Amino acid sequence: MEQTRMIPPMFKQIDPPQRFLMGPGPINAHPRVLRAMSADMLGQFDPEMTEYMNETMALYRQVFMTQNQWTFLVDGTARAGIEAALVSLVEPGAKILIVRAGRFGLLLSEIAERVGAEICTLDLPWGEVASLAQIEVALQEHKPQVLACIHGDTSTTMAQPLDGVGALCKKYNVLSYADVTATLGGVPVCTDRWGIDVVSGGLQKCMGGPPGSAPITISDRAAEHIMTRRHVEAGIRNASLTDGQRPRIPSNYFDLAMVMDYWSEKRLNHHTEATTMLYGAREAACIVLEEGLENRFARHKMASTALIAGLRAMGLTIFGDDAYRMANVTGVWIPASVDGDKVRLRMREDFGIEIGTAFGPLTGKIWRIGTMGYNAVKHKVLLTLGALEAALAAEGFKPPRGAAVDAALASWP
Amino acid sequence: MEQTRMIPPMFKQIDPPQRFLMGPGPINAHPRVLRAMSADMLGQFDPEMTEYMNETMALYRQVFMTQNQWTFLVDGTARAGIEAALVSLVEPGAKILIVRAGRFGLLLSEIAERVGAEICTLDLPWGEVASLAQIEVALQEHKPQVLACIHGDTSTTMAQPLDGVGALCKKYNVLSYADVTATLGGVPVCTDRWGIDVVSGGLQKCMGGPPGSAPITISDRAAEHIMTRRHVEAGIRNASLTDGQRPRIPSNYFDLAMVMDYWSEKRLNHHTEATTMLYGAREAACIVLEEGLENRFARHKMASTALIAGLRAMGLTIFGDDAYRMANVTGVWIPASVDGDKVRLRMREDFGIEIGTAFGPLTGKIWRIGTMGYNAVKHKVLLTLGALEAALAAEGFKPPRGAAVDAALASWP
Repeated sequence: MEQTRMIPPMFKQIDPPQRFLMGPGPINAHPRVLRAMSADMLGQFDPEMTEYMNETMALYRQVFMTQNQWTFLVDGTARAGIEAALVSLVEPGAKILIVRAGRFGLLLSEIAERVGAEICTLDLPWGEVASLAQIEVALQEHKPQVLACIHGDTSTTMAQPLDGVGALCKKYNVLSYADVTATLGGVPVCTDRWGIDVVSGGLQKCMGGPPGSAPITISDRAAEHIMTRRHVEAGIRNASLTDGQRPRIPSNYFDLAMVMDYWSEKRLNHHTEATTMLYGAREAACIVLEEGLENRFARHKMASTALIAGLRAMGLTIFGDDAYRMANVTGVWIPASVDGDKVRLRMREDFGIEIGTAFGPLTGKIWRIGTMGYNAVKHKVLLTLGALEAALAAEGFKPPRGAAVDAALASWP
Repeated sequence: MEQTRMIPPMFKQIDPPQRFLMGPGPINAHPRVLRAMSADMLGQFDPEMTEYMNETMALYRQVFMTQNQWTFLVDGTARAGIEAALVSLVEPGAKILIVRAGRFGLLLSEIAERVGAEICTLDLPWGEVASLAQIEVALQEHKPQVLACIHGDTSTTMAQPLDGVGALCKKYNVLSYADVTATLGGVPVCTDRWGIDVVSGGLQKCMGGPPGSAPITISDRAAEHIMTRRHVEAGIRNASLTDGQRPRIPSNYFDLAMVMDYWSEKRLNHHTEATTMLYGAREAACIVLEEGLENRFARHKMASTALIAGLRAMGLTIFGDDAYRMANVTGVWIPASVDGDKVRLRMREDFGIEIGTAFGPLTGKIWRIGTMGYNAVKHKVLLTLGALEAALAAEGFKPPRGAAVDAALASWP
């Protein structure tokens, strides 16, 4: 057999350097999450496994601040949650209105195009957000079936206000979707108060978990719409299951009707739930809720406020409008005299701290510094500021030494 | 805010009972895999992270027995790998020939239908496999662009022989796909010798890892075809990237052209790689290759041979044809006098051992017993047989006591 000619490569054990990941994500995972993930497998339909699934649903209802029955995990990274939502909500040929003010707004149209939707957009310069009035005008003009937007777009560090958006969509009989990958667990994600129908996120930002699982929540009216597209697999059909009358969802893996049948008491076999990621998602939610959502939001706010105070004390300029800034990722203009990538390299190589680069029109212009989840804490903010000061000094930009750390310390209550 | 009215549910720590999962999967994960998964995150483009990605590619080339450059992970369960392969290979309207002899053959048509393919099938009764001659006749009759099949269909416990299938497909200028979820790492998966263009698997069976990552390998000619459908996201376009001329892949998440650009030295941002699952997939492959593929295949063969000897000594009848049986999942007829589910319940509740039920036409007729990966070992085979004997006795079927364990012991060299 061929393999006898092969020599197994002798790779070392997994042993990543202990860095602070202070970029736009992934960030360091909470050790409790990783520990929970080291538990062994269960059978897919073992009562202990389905109980963990039910508990995970209950936990994420609280994380999403919703009463939605349909609150569960999509097995893939945050992007999988977005695609599952759009492919299940938007029928081929249906019109979708997308609010675009950054890279992830563009990603929504990229995904919706592939789903076969007719795309219309509300485009804003990177760094701006849409007003309710702008959204209403766009709804009136385009008459879409679905509205989709990003809550916190890490590419711009701005958060789109969503209060009132759900009500507007209901007024025009439009289903609504919001991606909250960057904000879930760090900034209020008020699913029910917003009235957004489908909201999906990820673990690797403020939730303090690893990438690879996408929590999602679905309103009853959206679930009803999705169920009109249900189509049960031939291999597992039985008399108690009826197909919907509307066009079948053009993906099997992302067919939320089937995923709901799997997470429901029907326990209809679909994929094999990613056990280890489920353990991690459940533990991340436990940690979030034990801390308490309000405490957690306050901690994120405090960390970014201190970070900003420190950056300003260094003489740097913060990107974007304070009124709409995300409390977990901060954009800062790279001084004209320095090479942003050289500073990032020094940060990583000398101090073991990662800060983020940028995309699209902001490439080379801003850094993005995350203070999220397990990393939204005083010592990591202070160490990051101290390291950035030293790296900037080494690259010829001379901030007043010590000022950043002092300012951040002073801003911490 | 709403959450102040909520009381966090006080769920216990993740603490699954220590069972032997001797069903069709998931099975118990190797503890080294789970331990590797408890390492902390890295930045997505940190040199250590991209090095782990490159090492994972090198390892899976050996696991798949291939020289294919394009050998990497799809971030999702095994089913995600199947959908990524089909949606990337098969253009809407293209004709696909699917070999169907069990539930997972049906799943291939289910997925291909949603991809918009024109489906033609080579249908066989559950438990049979297709001959090369049957496949050639079907290729001549249907003239498909793609052939798809399942290597080991756990629903029937049969393995479709694939030697010669790649050559046949090349003769008729057909791209080929095989799912090896159930066999990878336990039964020879000879990608290059078979000449199959795209082969995808999972971790949760013979690889001894958790579900949630789908290793995939792609021949150069299939990669070339997929690249003719490349379409770079608007948010990350640059002058060095050109779009292909053929129809865009109707999924973003499963667009293998984009996933390849991410895993290539281009490192073009797509999803955020599921770090923890990558660690697990890498460690699972290290364990497989340290044991050696031939040793591992022999161990699986030995475990199922001993299991079958034991089952027969109990007076039970093995399902299907010995010539095509998978060496890692065994089907056994449930005696007419017993309720299969009651026996399975006793196995689980009294002995902490899980064996599998069945799907479709085999529901209630056979059990499926897995001897895979970390569980393809003597003591687990013997304990399973002893427990099954006791459970059968309790349900009124009286096997000769002790005979199964003795026979299995005797068959072990």
